[in-house]
Amino acid sequence: MFSSPIGVFDSGLGGLTVLKSLQLALPNENFIYLGDTAHLPYGNKGIQSVFKYSKNIIDFFLSHDTKAVVIACNTASAVAYEDLKNIYDIPIFDVVTPSVNFAEKFSKNRNIGVIGTYSTINSGAYQKSFINIKSNCKIKEVACPLFVPLIEEGWHEKPVAKEIAYLYLNQFKKYNIDTLILGCTHYPIMEKTIKEVIQNDITLVFSGNTLGIELSTYLKMHNKDNKINVSPKTNFYVTDFPQKFDELGSRFLGEKLHSVQGITI
Amino acid sequence: MFSSPIGVFDSGLGGLTVLKSLQLALPNENFIYLGDTAHLPYGNKGIQSVFKYSKNIIDFFLSHDTKAVVIACNTASAVAYEDLKNIYDIPIFDVVTPSVNFAEKFSKNRNIGVIGTYSTINSGAYQKSFINIKSNCKIKEVACPLFVPLIEEGWHEKPVAKEIAYLYLNQFKKYNIDTLILGCTHYPIMEKTIKEVIQNDITLVFSGNTLGIELSTYLKMHNKDNKINVSPKTNFYVTDFPQKFDELGSRFLGEKLHSVQGITI
Repeated sequence: MFSSPIGVFDSGLGGLTVLKSLQLALPNENFIYLGDTAHLPYGNKGIQSVFKYSKNIIDFFLSHDTKAVVIACNTASAVAYEDLKNIYDIPIFDVVTPSVNFAEKFSKNRNIGVIGTYSTINSGAYQKSFINIKSNCKIKEVACPLFVPLIEEGWHEKPVAKEIAYLYLNQFKKYNIDTLILGCTHYPIMEKTIKEVIQNDITLVFSGNTLGIELSTYLKMHNKDNKINVSPKTNFYVTDFPQKFDELGSRFLGEKLHSVQGITI
Repeated sequence: MFSSPIGVFDSGLGGLTVLKSLQLALPNENFIYLGDTAHLPYGNKGIQSVFKYSKNIIDFFLSHDTKAVVIACNTASAVAYEDLKNIYDIPIFDVVTPSVNFAEKFSKNRNIGVIGTYSTINSGAYQKSFINIKSNCKIKEVACPLFVPLIEEGWHEKPVAKEIAYLYLNQFKKYNIDTLILGCTHYPIMEKTIKEVIQNDITLVFSGNTLGIELSTYLKMHNKDNKINVSPKTNFYVTDFPQKFDELGSRFLGEKLHSVQGITI
């Protein structure tokens, strides 16, 4: 159905930055967001566990009549996306592929940087995705493990955040990148600080934005977009209420999360 | 047996700072160190899981004829120590109780600070331990979630570490503490930086040191200390080889880890 919601999930609340971008790119659509907070972070779970959690969430989405699924989690995108895509008929989108496609298309000097958590960088997901599309770009990856705790402390615009960003991003200097993929759903919150530290002419690629373009194109091409513009809504579900839930939720979504339901899946 | 080893475990390599202190305090003793790296961090696992992992490790230690067990992990100390103590005959030591006993005894103005990860602070383990000994001290706790990633990046003596330490430790100013418990096995690595930021007259309490005193006293009182001074040895076991294993191991122990065996428990 046109008005069926799009299901978006992450291991936690970081995926709310992706949801926010999707709400802007697809203003007519209804959404369901599920934060699998009982199992966060996926980054230190085994591949089988991440696959099982993701599958349970997609089954939950299907029981809510979703028309598409967005894996707004870099770990699940890295380790479960390919297999999930093969077992479901419903269209499934990940956060890695759209950013890689976008960067590959728009990089002029063919030098691309990727930042993410240790878990994401070590998964090799971005490297593999560039290889999959037979890219001739040179990829330099830097893990930035302090960014997530900085953001969760609310210190992402303090001078100390700028110094840390400099320590990480300065490592790209000799690689002469013109494009930088933010490979973690938390990182859009650091946008201002990252921009202050890198050169002006480097394009930042956010998975939320690139995904918005791909998802919008897909829905229109398949005549599945919601043409009725009547105050679309988003329902929120979480599997646990972690520390600082409200504070982080508001920070990532840019507004207060209303009527969040706790569920067990 | 006098020469039987002392078993020391942590979810990862942080407990090596405790081992280092124990080796100094008990120079005649043999040790077994087990880092349950396959399950790290314990901080986001359920209580039942942490209990099960800890029990499996103690059973492993018993099969190696250990004469005492040290839980060099704040999470396992907080959630599993009491129950483990009740089911084993072998003496078991945790990292919370000795520091609390020491701080309670030596604080003059009765205002004590505790720093740790979110998981440790939220467990309430230190508060409970002060209540258990009917302390009249006022306890102020501050979670310092950026310290562990700073240490794991090797940035713990950079200017940025000092700034972060200031942001956290400045919160103690109005509480007029004279004693600060470092409630995380990683934190001794930050000692220099912490000392630069806090007032000179605040006593830092490290669990490794206080535990060394308690364990030494216990062994002597029970005539279990190793009286034969012939080059004691330490055997290392881990359940997985995580990223930066060698680098972190050396940082925490102060020397290279030799002949580490990977095991499944």
